[in-house]
Amino acid sequence: MNKEVIYLDHAAATPVDRKVLAAMQPFLSDAFYNPSAPYAPAIEVRKAYERAKQTIASTFGASADDIVMTAGATESINLAFHSISGHVVVTSIEHHAVLEAAKRHEHTVVEVDGKGMVDPEVVRRAIRDDTELVSVALANNEIGTVQPLRAIAEVVKTEREKRLQQGSDVPIYLHTDASQGVGQLDVHVSRLGVDLMTLNAAKIYGPKQVGLLWAAHSVSLQPQINGGGQERGLRSGTENVAGVIGFAKAIELAAEHRVHEAERLRKLRDDMQVKLLEAFPEAVVSGHPKHRLASYLHISFPSVDAERVLFILESSGVLVATGSACAANKGTRSHVLEAIGLEPSVADGSLRITLGHLSDETTCRKAVELIIEAVRREYSRTGVL
Amino acid sequence: MNKEVIYLDHAAATPVDRKVLAAMQPFLSDAFYNPSAPYAPAIEVRKAYERAKQTIASTFGASADDIVMTAGATESINLAFHSISGHVVVTSIEHHAVLEAAKRHEHTVVEVDGKGMVDPEVVRRAIRDDTELVSVALANNEIGTVQPLRAIAEVVKTEREKRLQQGSDVPIYLHTDASQGVGQLDVHVSRLGVDLMTLNAAKIYGPKQVGLLWAAHSVSLQPQINGGGQERGLRSGTENVAGVIGFAKAIELAAEHRVHEAERLRKLRDDMQVKLLEAFPEAVVSGHPKHRLASYLHISFPSVDAERVLFILESSGVLVATGSACAANKGTRSHVLEAIGLEPSVADGSLRITLGHLSDETTCRKAVELIIEAVRREYSRTGVL
Repeated sequence: MNKEVIYLDHAAATPVDRKVLAAMQPFLSDAFYNPSAPYAPAIEVRKAYERAKQTIASTFGASADDIVMTAGATESINLAFHSISGHVVVTSIEHHAVLEAAKRHEHTVVEVDGKGMVDPEVVRRAIRDDTELVSVALANNEIGTVQPLRAIAEVVKTEREKRLQQGSDVPIYLHTDASQGVGQLDVHVSRLGVDLMTLNAAKIYGPKQVGLLWAAHSVSLQPQINGGGQERGLRSGTENVAGVIGFAKAIELAAEHRVHEAERLRKLRDDMQVKLLEAFPEAVVSGHPKHRLASYLHISFPSVDAERVLFILESSGVLVATGSACAANKGTRSHVLEAIGLEPSVADGSLRITLGHLSDETTCRKAVELIIEAVRREYSRTGVL
Repeated sequence: MNKEVIYLDHAAATPVDRKVLAAMQPFLSDAFYNPSAPYAPAIEVRKAYERAKQTIASTFGASADDIVMTAGATESINLAFHSISGHVVVTSIEHHAVLEAAKRHEHTVVEVDGKGMVDPEVVRRAIRDDTELVSVALANNEIGTVQPLRAIAEVVKTEREKRLQQGSDVPIYLHTDASQGVGQLDVHVSRLGVDLMTLNAAKIYGPKQVGLLWAAHSVSLQPQINGGGQERGLRSGTENVAGVIGFAKAIELAAEHRVHEAERLRKLRDDMQVKLLEAFPEAVVSGHPKHRLASYLHISFPSVDAERVLFILESSGVLVATGSACAANKGTRSHVLEAIGLEPSVADGSLRITLGHLSDETTCRKAVELIIEAVRREYSRTGVL
């Protein structure tokens, strides 16, 4: 990491942790064997791979046999949706991967409130007799709002029991993409009450293109990628040994430091939020004030062109996002900000600041100063304030 | 690599080349940015990623815009098959990924001759009016036979022209999985005459779970994994930047050293073959004597239990395969050896020896001695010879 750079876009990408890289390294060199090969050194690789899967699963109260390793969250989400055939319910602020996967099914998109919260009662009303999947991200990737998954799980459970009583054999599952939450929230699958969960190594200082789909025993996954029969036939292809071992180290570290790190980031974030709102009382902070990822500060400066602010900040070494990396570069307005009802003139002045390992008091203080300076410059240029 | 080990299973896995790892390293640490992020350091990552794709494509006469990066050959193959809806023609010795993908379509499996060669005329006869895809691996992954792809491409071209004349708008494409050939054969797409080609980094000293599907302009690929719209909407998910940059270095090195390396391996292989046949005149070498990968020596010792030989060899540090890594561990007889008509008692005595960077005269000479010793031991134990 360039020392002059202040990185405030941890939701888009995280650097691979040194410990993670160290764990991966042997499997990129000496222990390169194909884990399906029959000789002892390859069997050792197989064992290390299986141990890594067990480590990963243990961090969220699951078993290695119930996770399918994938090439990232997007593939995991696609696999979850591919496994069911009926109607699906998603929210209007889901990641594009969920929204696109939903389009291949009959689907209902439920709205969220102005804070980006999903009302379990609204989910309940959207469920039809043929609904097989409800998919709600644990934490939104643009504004950081954390959803009441436990309550949504209750809704799904009630529907399941109703169907059982009625003699219906249509299954219904709750899937969550917890990629953005795993380093800060409890993602224990029983406590969340979900049936399917997607995780991503790249958001927690692991390698890119390594993810997983966890599925409860009751779920019958249908492979999208067939071949040699790896991952219990659910996802073929020679295993990404180094990547999965890196994921294991990353999620182990995330679980170990989660509570402390969330607390640390919350203080840094709250401090930035207070100072920015002091400087710009008209600014709008999005996401739920309480149920929000500690690392997230989504703030909009009405009538400001966020892209211009972003470039001014970049020239001072501060890297922030205007939205999620996927949407930001396409010149389209964020569907999340539309869904929470942000006026276009407010939405267009939005910065997504996401903190993480590379954030500390010094860099955050410096960043606030530079953001205030940049926004003031834009306000004075446009003569709005 | 453990110095006492003699690795003769390069078809199953290859160690990541030091130069490849060096090329990847910056993108696992400092240059970790999401290539879709809007600030300059991320744009640099995007450029490096696109350059890597261009480097890769250039090695086989293609353009970066025509390749889709995937998580390996299996995914690429599945994407190719997912993109068409009609009847498909495959050969009986294709990789499981092709055979499994074919099962999702109406399909015809064409037989091969005793040397594992596909007869273009047989392919021609298998093509129906609704055939949309013919898929033939450039080189077989068990016995190394190299197919007459150019002639098969002519068959497909003739069929295409016939349809054009008849006013049919059913497309027909030729796909090849060239994963096992790319380090030793010319895989220039125009010279091969294919419309779709699958490649895999892990077979050429690149990282595991990095592959690509090349498609000619005429082919309309249909995404299997939807989401953020990466890879021109054909395969979503944050890009595997380090992996693809590693692939570029690996394929560049492979292309540079291909002719020389194939020559070097051919000499080593031929020498091993001569010596083993001298010691065991009843042994059967499979694959085409001439049209065969230089690195491959598939040899069967009738009435010997290859698994026992494998374990004896392993105890002396020699690592060979009994078949492809995917099939070998499942206790089923190889479908490739069945297809070429090898008697079960011969097939069960098969070793797949595949040479590569870790092979040299000293290790190959030593390996031959140890193989002769091991096979003799088995013969004397069973009293067959």
